[in-house]
Order: sequence, then C-alpha cells, then structure tokens
Amino acid sequence: MTTLPLEHDLARLRAETPTSEKLIHFNNAGAGLMPEPVVRTVTDHLLLEAEIGGYEAEEARASEIAAFYDAVATLLGCSPSSVAFTASATDAYTRALSAVPFERGDSLLTTRNDYISNQIAFMALGRRYGIEVIHAPDAADGRVDIAAVEAMIRNQRPRLVAVTHVPTDSGLVQPVAEIGAVCREYATLYLVDACQSVGQLSVDVAEIGCDFLSATGRKFLRGPRGTGFLYVSPRALAAGLEPLFIDMRGAAWTEKQGYTSADTAQRFEEWESPYALKLGLAAAVRYAIEVGLEPISLRASALAAELRLLLDGVDGVRVLDRGRERCAIVTVAVDGWKGDDFRRELTARSINSGISLLEHSRFDFNDKGVDWALRLSPHYYNTRAEVEKVATAVVEVAASR
Amino acid sequence: MTTLPLEHDLARLRAETPTSEKLIHFNNAGAGLMPEPVVRTVTDHLLLEAEIGGYEAEEARASEIAAFYDAVATLLGCSPSSVAFTASATDAYTRALSAVPFERGDSLLTTRNDYISNQIAFMALGRRYGIEVIHAPDAADGRVDIAAVEAMIRNQRPRLVAVTHVPTDSGLVQPVAEIGAVCREYATLYLVDACQSVGQLSVDVAEIGCDFLSATGRKFLRGPRGTGFLYVSPRALAAGLEPLFIDMRGAAWTEKQGYTSADTAQRFEEWESPYALKLGLAAAVRYAIEVGLEPISLRASALAAELRLLLDGVDGVRVLDRGRERCAIVTVAVDGWKGDDFRRELTARSINSGISLLEHSRFDFNDKGVDWALRLSPHYYNTRAEVEKVATAVVEVAASR
Repeated sequence: MTTLPLEHDLARLRAETPTSEKLIHFNNAGAGLMPEPVVRTVTDHLLLEAEIGGYEAEEARASEIAAFYDAVATLLGCSPSSVAFTASATDAYTRALSAVPFERGDSLLTTRNDYISNQIAFMALGRRYGIEVIHAPDAADGRVDIAAVEAMIRNQRPRLVAVTHVPTDSGLVQPVAEIGAVCREYATLYLVDACQSVGQLSVDVAEIGCDFLSATGRKFLRGPRGTGFLYVSPRALAAGLEPLFIDMRGAAWTEKQGYTSADTAQRFEEWESPYALKLGLAAAVRYAIEVGLEPISLRASALAAELRLLLDGVDGVRVLDRGRERCAIVTVAVDGWKGDDFRRELTARSINSGISLLEHSRFDFNDKGVDWALRLSPHYYNTRAEVEKVATAVVEVAASR
Repeated sequence: MTTLPLEHDLARLRAETPTSEKLIHFNNAGAGLMPEPVVRTVTDHLLLEAEIGGYEAEEARASEIAAFYDAVATLLGCSPSSVAFTASATDAYTRALSAVPFERGDSLLTTRNDYISNQIAFMALGRRYGIEVIHAPDAADGRVDIAAVEAMIRNQRPRLVAVTHVPTDSGLVQPVAEIGAVCREYATLYLVDACQSVGQLSVDVAEIGCDFLSATGRKFLRGPRGTGFLYVSPRALAAGLEPLFIDMRGAAWTEKQGYTSADTAQRFEEWESPYALKLGLAAAVRYAIEVGLEPISLRASALAAELRLLLDGVDGVRVLDRGRERCAIVTVAVDGWKGDDFRRELTARSINSGISLLEHSRFDFNDKGVDWALRLSPHYYNTRAEVEKVATAVVEVAASR
C-alpha cells in the first residue's frame, strides 16, 4: 500500500481538529469539522464585538476582513474584486440567478444531478416568469453528456447553463471545464454550484470558464455554518449584471430617484454580515490553502476510493457513485434498511454519516432505482484506520437485519 | 428628577454587559452590545459544532433551536408558525418583497423616511419590472401624513404599502398601526421594517396589522450580527405568498416537475443557517423579554429625551428628530464639522456613536437641510451619568472648531 499524501502532517492536522479520537466524522459533505484556528478566530471577534461594539469591532478588524477577499481569490484563481461574501451557497446561487436577464419563454439548461435547492429555484422561476427548465441527459459513464449539452445550447440557446460541480448525493464530478468551453463558444451565461467541490478539489474559475460560481464555507472548506461566497466574472460585471435586490452595500443612492451599483462583486453583497463568521471563513480558506488543495484532494479521494473498494461486492450493499473521476463522497444503497435507522446504527458506533433521500435527488435516484442512500464523506484529516472501521461497521449493520 | 425604570436592576444588567466601564456605547442603532448569555450561547454552540460536527450539533440542540420561534412569537405577539429566521433584516425584507405579486404598472407606496436599502430595492424593482414607487408626504409633525396615505391607497391602489417603523437616521416613530388600519380597510399588502424598533419598543404585529414585518438581531435586541427574522401573517401564508427563491427548507420536491411549499413561514427560510447565531438571537430575544419591553422602551427613550434637552439650544448644535413620539435615536446637526471627524473626536473620548449621511437619507435630510447628522443611540443599560458625559463631550467638540 502506498503512503497517502499529508501522512507526515497528520498528527498536527488532527491535533488542530478538536474532536474526540473516538468519533469518526464521515459527514464532511454535510459540514466539515472546523479546525481550531477557525473556531478561535470566530470566538475572538464575537468577544471583541461584545466588548467594544459590533461596528467598532468591524472597524478595528477592517484589514483582516478585507483579507477575506484575497484568501478566496487565491483559492479560486481570480481577482479579489470578483468575490462576494454571502450567507450560504444557496444565498450566493440565488443572487447570481436573480442577475440573469430572463425573459418569458427563455430556457435554462441544467443536469439531472443538480442540487435539489437549485432545481426548486428553477421551478419557481418557471412558475413565476415562464422559464422552461431543460435537463441534459447523462452519458454512459454517469456524467452529463457533453455532446448533448453542446447540441442543446446550439439549438435551444438557453439564457443560462447551470451545473453542480459535485452533486451532493453522489461522488460524481461533472466535467465543468468542458461545459465551460462550450458556454464560451456560444457566449452563454454559465453558473456553477461548487458547494461540494471547494475545499476538496482544486477549483479554478478561469479553467472552468464560468460567469458565476457559488460555494459554502461549512463543508470541505471547514468554515463556519452560515457562510458562503460567490465568484462573479469580470465579464459578468462589465455586462452590468446585478442581483435583483441590491442594497446600500451593493449600490450608492446617488440621486433621489437613482442609484449607482458598485464596480466589483460587492454589488452582490448585503450591507449586514456576520463578521465573526466571515473572518472565520477567511481563516478556513487560508488553512486549506496552507494544507494544499492538491494533497487534500488526493488524500480525501484516495480514502473514499479505498472505502468504495471495501464495500463493493458486499452482500446487500451497493456502491452508487458513477463518473470517470470520483471524489470524497461515497454513496451506498443498503437492502432492507430505512436510511435514518441505518444512520442511527452508525451514530451508535461513533460514526457520523449522512442520508440522501429520493426526494432530494428525484432524477438521479430514480435512474439508480433507490429511495435512499447512505452518504459517507471522509476528508483529508481522516485515516485509513477510520476507513476500515467505517467499512466494517457498514458491513456489520447491513448484515444484522 | 424621577427615578428611571430598571434603575434597581442596573448593576446586574451592566455586569452582564462585558464592556469596560470607561466606554460609553451610544451606537445601539448601529449594533447593541451583546449581553454575556448571548455570547456564551453562540460560543458554546460553535465549540460543540467543532467537536461533534455541524449537523450533529444541530440535531443535539434541536429543541433549543425550535425555541427560537417561540421566543420571537412571544416578542411579537404572534404564532411561532409565522416566524422565519433570516440572515439580516434586509434579507428578511427582500424575501417579503420578492413574495409580492407585482405586475408591470403596479405601484408601491412608501414614506420619505424609509430606509436607504429599501429605497434602493424599490428602485431596482422599478427598473426591472416597471413598478412605480410613490412617496407619501410628511405631516407637519414629521410623521407620514396618514390622510395622504389613505387618499393615495384609495386612488392609486398600490400593490404594497411599505413603511419603516423607526427610520434609521432619526428618532421618529411612524404611526404604523394607523397605517395598518388603512391597509386592512383596503385589503392592501403591508410590509413593515422594524429593524430599529424591535428591542427598544413594544412591537405587536396584531396591533400593527401588517402582512410582513422584518427585523434584525444586532441592534436594540442585542443579538449577534448576521441575524434577522421575518414575520409573515396567517393571511399572507393562506394567500400562498412565497419568496421568489424558495429552497429545500421552504419547499419539498414532491415530483420531478413540482414542489410543495411549507404551510408555515418556514417557506421564507433557507436550508442553511448559522445555528450558533440563531441560538444566540433566541437568547437575546428571551433576555429582552425578561428585562421587559415596556421598561426597556421607557428607560431608553427617557435617556434619549434627556440627551435632546441637554443639546437643544446649544450654539452650533441642532437636534433634528421630529414626530409626536420619539425613541432612543437622537440625531444632531453640528455646524462647521464633517461627520467622520466629529465621530473620531467622540471615539477619542471613549464614546461610540454613528454618522448618517445625506446619501443615506436623501428625502429626509434634504428636507432638513443637512448633509450629515451625528446619531447618538443610548439603550436601557446606559445611565444618566453617561448621557451627561456625552452631552458635555458633544458641546465641547462642537465649540472647539
């Protein structure tokens, strides 16, 4: 067996993750464990706010707050002026969606694996404004069919192409850069949901070629809950795209009947922010960059691959993940169990996991013929020994019914 | 001089406010100082999240999280099912605004004192959807002219009436219940921005008669930054009003091409929340209820009234607040100074204050003939001695130029 990346740093990385050695956290696709520097950053700022006042603390920490944009820019390979802080990935996503100049009869092209909240937002847009939502078919390997995407863009000229980089309910990685190349060819607006990919994969917005990219802080980035960010391309900014509801942070009230929007992605932010959490997210992004996205990605996906190998072929257990490249999300169907019951059995063995339901992923789970899946999502701070323990527990619980 | 309300509790209340006795915080209209139980609640939950996982901590604290709705319901005099948690007051406000079924050519009636971010949102709606924004005139006492509001509703049938209860840049209190009675008479949707009123005044949604009411946690409620809530009336819920962008928290994906919205105000929430902050806001709301909104309101406005008396008539200083009832926001024009310079002088004397600019309040400040105002906002935990010190400092700085 080869040595995994980051093995030499693991003792320190685990010491900075203030979790009991008895607990195995394989729910990083739900929320990652915040490392100690993130928690300390958040609590320090809260205490400062309580001591000197919320706005006064913001002023005192102005340069650290500004450094949030630099950190995210480094993470994504863009300019800090393309970065907006948001309350969540969905908040980022809907702000981007609200900026798209849809007209009645327009279409929106997405995949069969896009995130439930995106799908609901598309349907809501459809109801309200008469937008047609079209789903590109999957290719044989489970990824979206690039040739079909190209044909649909050429023939139907959708106003927007919206793709989830890593679907929340499977280990699939969509070919977002290949889709981006097609979008650029046809000058089509392109929105990427990177909620499950930032922090576990290298995400380079120039390589992807997107106009917007939304992300959360709480998952593989190991930031605080209630944080997210939005990338807005210079092209989208220059085109004057702005969110439907812009406020005094995104715009200046320049005359009684007029306002002027910010030049930068600040246009997509709101005046009020949880500054303690924003500083915590900046700390989380810097932490990930220091550990290194390349080794993070290699190690997390290697652990997931080992887990898949250990579970594949076990009686009553089916690994569901498809795609050419697979990531740190492992989804498994288990015969004869209900999702919540199965998860509780793992919890009783000090293993954190997640459950995905058919109603979270109606197209993909329907295609796979399952009504729920167990989601196991290790991260780089996990170990081979933990992978083995989790596999053993899954096999044991699956056989116990 | 009469004894102020809460005087007997003051030592305890101040002990629970972990601020140096040397600092005078008169910037509660910016952000109030979180009391110790709020800070402890937030940090406790953050530490739990880091220890056992974000979703696992949410599950472990499920009943405390549910109690958020009970606390806000008690505060506003409504059912918990009418309460939604949001990322800020503006977030709450725009979710409500996005639920209003505007059609091209509709009008929206507001005041000359409504909050800048609301005014920008109205203009953005106007640009995008051809909505006409109309501003009701003020009465002689500075409040919006109720007779004019009634006539404008009768004649122009606006799709929405939107009023800021306490404008952020003055001590004015708008007659929101009287406006509500008119809205009810004409069955007109009514949105109240209570960002500056919750926590300093008794706010009763039944008495106001509104369909929506938005609020922040960070100001007079003394909650964490990055929190807010929205009240949605049973009438608005029954009418099926829902935000434009609804997600998997607000709706269930019930069939491939359809979703079903929640029955309650949860419809207006997003899946992801900063649960540590949400618990902190619940603690802040309970804290305010325990202290008592009636004595809070009496004491804070009495301190403000004393400050106005001390400043009124001083050379080069003009108290700007109007209205029949005035609250804990004191706004003052000072001759010969720039706002930021003046504020820095107060900061140097360990006094926190705020500055409002013409570009934050184009109608009202234009009417008052000022391009900036000093905003001094005491709260119930402040003292008469502090009011005197602040007044002395303002007079001293004003005279020093």
